[in-house]
Amino acid sequence: MKNNYYSLGIDIGGTNTVFGAISNEGLILKKESVLTNSGENPSVLFDEIFKKNQLWIKELKNSYTFKDIGIGVPNGNYFTGMVKNPPNLGQQWQNLDLVTFVKNYHDVPIKITNDANAAALGEQAFGVAKKMNNVVVITLGTGLGSGIITNGKVLYGHDGFAGELGHVIIDSKGRPCECGRQGCLEMYVSAKGLKHTIDEYLTRYPGNKTLLNLKADNFDGKKMDEAFDAGINIIEEIYEFTGNILGLGLAQAATILSPEAFIFYGGLSKAKHRILKFAKKSMDANLLGFQKNNIRILLSKLADGEAGILGASSLHK
Amino acid sequence: MKNNYYSLGIDIGGTNTVFGAISNEGLILKKESVLTNSGENPSVLFDEIFKKNQLWIKELKNSYTFKDIGIGVPNGNYFTGMVKNPPNLGQQWQNLDLVTFVKNYHDVPIKITNDANAAALGEQAFGVAKKMNNVVVITLGTGLGSGIITNGKVLYGHDGFAGELGHVIIDSKGRPCECGRQGCLEMYVSAKGLKHTIDEYLTRYPGNKTLLNLKADNFDGKKMDEAFDAGINIIEEIYEFTGNILGLGLAQAATILSPEAFIFYGGLSKAKHRILKFAKKSMDANLLGFQKNNIRILLSKLADGEAGILGASSLHK
Repeated sequence: MKNNYYSLGIDIGGTNTVFGAISNEGLILKKESVLTNSGENPSVLFDEIFKKNQLWIKELKNSYTFKDIGIGVPNGNYFTGMVKNPPNLGQQWQNLDLVTFVKNYHDVPIKITNDANAAALGEQAFGVAKKMNNVVVITLGTGLGSGIITNGKVLYGHDGFAGELGHVIIDSKGRPCECGRQGCLEMYVSAKGLKHTIDEYLTRYPGNKTLLNLKADNFDGKKMDEAFDAGINIIEEIYEFTGNILGLGLAQAATILSPEAFIFYGGLSKAKHRILKFAKKSMDANLLGFQKNNIRILLSKLADGEAGILGASSLHK
Repeated sequence: MKNNYYSLGIDIGGTNTVFGAISNEGLILKKESVLTNSGENPSVLFDEIFKKNQLWIKELKNSYTFKDIGIGVPNGNYFTGMVKNPPNLGQQWQNLDLVTFVKNYHDVPIKITNDANAAALGEQAFGVAKKMNNVVVITLGTGLGSGIITNGKVLYGHDGFAGELGHVIIDSKGRPCECGRQGCLEMYVSAKGLKHTIDEYLTRYPGNKTLLNLKADNFDGKKMDEAFDAGINIIEEIYEFTGNILGLGLAQAATILSPEAFIFYGGLSKAKHRILKFAKKSMDANLLGFQKNNIRILLSKLADGEAGILGASSLHK
């Protein structure tokens, strides 16, 4: 067992951070989920991660050597090792040299990428994207992120900033986005976008009880899915609206990338076909003729958070 | 001189076809331009090309052996060798197994790709895209084509249909496009798009002499540039309108690809800064914050048609 090692894979989200010890064969040896404490100094989070990792080093020492660290983090840049202006993390994360910061905890090779690229790498190595050389992984959660594989490799672009599918403009006179522009896909298709949509519907139908209850429940996705399954029209309408816009965004991306599939991952993807069937229909309606019915929409089959840590751990390969 | 060979590089356009004998070192040994006769049976064109190539084989035989053929053609598919529904070529080109067709002329290895990918390969090997691993080459002519390089390689997507930047939708309620959808970039930014724009302006300003003259001259690009240089307001306005829309399309593509540069090639690119200065301004206004002023707009420096034949000849490398 001498040549076996493990990588510490970390997937940082706006709310939760998942991290694990991943063996060189891709086995998840250990896995934990903790609150990101996104408003705090990042040391609050990393103190916790490395306390745990010290235990893992001891527990695993007879079989695996701790070798390196890979991190997926919103707006993490593979080339520079910096995190810049992540929308869902607090002040102390806004201009952070994360590689240097983490090296102070444990001086092993460290690489970072953005969270969606990490998910894409995980899907490519261990998930439904296996054997796909041209594929887009979309993380649907608070926001909409995308990790793009072209010719078998993550698409970073010249500066590490490629793959911002959430900021493709769907309607240049549409909803204002935090990025300073208007009508970005993410402002319609994400937890954030759904809140906007429900608020808009509430303006149109002020006394609607379903909508008022959803708002009172802080837009609980599971309850929304239940309302959809119960056949409540207004929720069907909201999911159809959301799916239609998603399909338009996917068609725009497909015009440029022509991927084999779009793979969905993350909290809001749990709505599954309820949103994605509308998205597929809208995508096909908006694709170029020769692409119609030739691009698949799939759901990730990896357990919660696993694509991210598996992908992050594979950054050194 | 024994191991030297040449490839026949062919770049088929809606109006003209350029072809040449390109040495293994990338030298253009011979070059010709002929009318595509796009309405005719493709054999009219290829009879002419291979008659010339037989002469070249004889003339070059002491120094170079004829080895293979590479072809750039609108809607040419690298994977299947087929040409499907090219908008600016006639009936007999609409569903053509080009590789098999050309093999009947000369049985050497034959590869095809679309015309914009050929231009991108040419720019990468011999032009301003040298040393760029993430770059988009845009052919501005009758239509708007794009060849995309990611991670150093042409982006074909899973089926060879990636890179249709001309069909990114700019305005879903905009001008009808031949592809069956509305508001595609190409319907605004191309020779075809400019004609539409001038017609729209003529509806607004029915007696305008500059516009009427341009229409009478079949929308001569050089005359338009002269009118622009003479400071005629309405032409400035038309170029600004065109450049603004182009910039929006480039920003959309950059959100996904983050290339080092967009490189312009083809007839309409001769308008140079007259359109591209507006495009740069509009692109920067529509880019995400961290991309602003970080993506270049460049003009091809290769002679007319050379990017295409150089790129096509490099398909076997």
